[in-house]
Amino acid sequence: MSSTRLPPSPTPVVDVHTHVYFPRYAAELRARSSAPRILTREGADGKPEERLLILDGEPGSGRPVGPQYWDREEKLEFMKRHHIHISFVSSANPWLDFLSAERASTLAQALNSDLEEYCASSPEVDGFPGLRSLYGFGLLPLVPHVPISSVIQTIEHIKTLPHVSGVIMGTKGVGNGLDDEALEPVWKAIESAGLVVFIHPHYGVDGQAFGTKPNGHVLPLALGFPFETTIAITRLILAGVLDRHPNLRLLLAHSGGALPQLSSRIASCIAHDPVVAKRLKHDARYYLGKLYFDAVAYGSEELAFVSETIARAESYSAAGGSYNANAGSTRMLFGTDHPFFPPLEASQRWQSVEDNLRAIRDVRSWNESAQADVLGLNALRLFSLKY
Amino acid sequence: MSSTRLPPSPTPVVDVHTHVYFPRYAAELRARSSAPRILTREGADGKPEERLLILDGEPGSGRPVGPQYWDREEKLEFMKRHHIHISFVSSANPWLDFLSAERASTLAQALNSDLEEYCASSPEVDGFPGLRSLYGFGLLPLVPHVPISSVIQTIEHIKTLPHVSGVIMGTKGVGNGLDDEALEPVWKAIESAGLVVFIHPHYGVDGQAFGTKPNGHVLPLALGFPFETTIAITRLILAGVLDRHPNLRLLLAHSGGALPQLSSRIASCIAHDPVVAKRLKHDARYYLGKLYFDAVAYGSEELAFVSETIARAESYSAAGGSYNANAGSTRMLFGTDHPFFPPLEASQRWQSVEDNLRAIRDVRSWNESAQADVLGLNALRLFSLKY
Repeated sequence: MSSTRLPPSPTPVVDVHTHVYFPRYAAELRARSSAPRILTREGADGKPEERLLILDGEPGSGRPVGPQYWDREEKLEFMKRHHIHISFVSSANPWLDFLSAERASTLAQALNSDLEEYCASSPEVDGFPGLRSLYGFGLLPLVPHVPISSVIQTIEHIKTLPHVSGVIMGTKGVGNGLDDEALEPVWKAIESAGLVVFIHPHYGVDGQAFGTKPNGHVLPLALGFPFETTIAITRLILAGVLDRHPNLRLLLAHSGGALPQLSSRIASCIAHDPVVAKRLKHDARYYLGKLYFDAVAYGSEELAFVSETIARAESYSAAGGSYNANAGSTRMLFGTDHPFFPPLEASQRWQSVEDNLRAIRDVRSWNESAQADVLGLNALRLFSLKY
Repeated sequence: MSSTRLPPSPTPVVDVHTHVYFPRYAAELRARSSAPRILTREGADGKPEERLLILDGEPGSGRPVGPQYWDREEKLEFMKRHHIHISFVSSANPWLDFLSAERASTLAQALNSDLEEYCASSPEVDGFPGLRSLYGFGLLPLVPHVPISSVIQTIEHIKTLPHVSGVIMGTKGVGNGLDDEALEPVWKAIESAGLVVFIHPHYGVDGQAFGTKPNGHVLPLALGFPFETTIAITRLILAGVLDRHPNLRLLLAHSGGALPQLSSRIASCIAHDPVVAKRLKHDARYYLGKLYFDAVAYGSEELAFVSETIARAESYSAAGGSYNANAGSTRMLFGTDHPFFPPLEASQRWQSVEDNLRAIRDVRSWNESAQADVLGLNALRLFSLKY
């Protein structure tokens, strides 16, 4: 892989996968004595060091956490370094999952207001008048026992926030997953509000499957995370949520995890189970063409393949349809996963970001216009931003 | 998708993914009172019906089981119907996993002899002199507490069986997974014997992740199975097994599950974890070029993508190397997963088989010669069969 620096893009570069822990949220984590929490311990240099422990039993007592998680200047500096014009920031996992229904509802409201303020007062983008540097995905209080009316109220609140154009969502729903009928009014309200739902993993899968070897975070992050997303979206498809809400706009983290590669297998398994098959309007592969995928896969072959599975989707419509080679690049969106996957030394460029940028430029089936779409124009369209 | 019947192939068609439950094994399952077991219950027509329950808590009390699982004539008839010349049969999951070490060792020996007899006395293949219709993958007694010497003895026995050219293997090893150091002599003996290891899932992942909706077998089969294979092979890579045994030939079920799509993410996660990174000789993507993948993915885009990840593998060698567009079709092999995924009515053609055949013929980057390789010539080369 070449390590030549990529030139800046002449069209806007928009990062749809970039996280923030607001000070209010970090304070909540510092007050806790079990994961998720922020704890202070003595660092290698003898000075106190804050560490973020997302899950119990994480190797190495979690990861170092600092201003890159909450300081807006650091986010803007990172964007500048990588020629990113606009970021759609989202709270990082595990969001509000660990809170009581009441606390989650209160904190969602406060954090969504924090997000609006964080974005609304951000610098305008040089060269693209009318656009700000920062927009965001809000939070819903999706925790067990929450009254659905509280979730709907939060959606109503978000609708009033001009710089918050979507919500980030884990996979638990109100405790039973995203295929829970209890969420039906939530999908309806989100669809009607035109908010984009960014579906993001947190729990992975049963950690026992990863064994006991010292593999650091590799298995839960590289496999567990995308498996979780794949299960969540497959359950949504199987539950008919995409049939009932054809205008729901779902953006899948990490290029949809393993959904594209397993989509024909999913379709085959459904076809062999008449009870499931007759519930769905279309072949499972059809639904990939209704989804949006971030382009956080670190390889051009992966992106080209996701693009293919979108291109073929319409040919699996029950109504008949055809392969559309250009469809893929209209539904994939650049992302970085900042502040995760940082360089090994603070002074370095972020290899993870360069890899994702290079992957977009190396997809052989994408011309310059398709690349510009994935790098940023799709995001502007998805979020109805004009310049 | 077109439903036109595919014409027979002029070159041998070899199925490397096709299962058998020998009568001796079925008897073992009938004698059990918990899964895995074969039980008899009253069928829809009031007559007794045997059902195979592979895992506890399977929906619908498992699946109907009958002669297609053990009768050689049914296997040969199935092959004839789909113009398959040769099948490399393997015992189906869960193999010997549920047995004591002693019973597993005894039964492995007996079942491997059954397999040799089943294959050695099978008809010669019309038009391809010197080839028989059936060859096989044997079983190793990989269960907790088994003396490794028993496993090695079984390998030695298999070496004496001319029609058994490999072993099928689950993901548990002797209880701690395939990355267990205890298996090091096993890998060495397999490598030295030149046996092909067919890595196949059984357990899936934590079933709780699939929720409680009536989705039949779809989620465990479509997602759980490939996730399990993906975890197993990633753990093997991370443990350095492929570095230490460069001549080990591993064939991955279901086109490697999600490994191809997550391989750049795996590489990125490793690169961000120096302790893991420094253990491995190569970028994770390199190892995909050392593996074999069955072509059981039900879609041509999936196969084309797996082929791409093999094509690029050498360019991730630490020694330097380049993209090789032709590499993919030399390491992928047709399979059916028979007798699973049967037609909904007994009289029908097997859609699952037709889908997999069509997928091979529809890969745009494969010419006729590449298709012939995947359909059968690769298998003949892999197993050193000549005609």
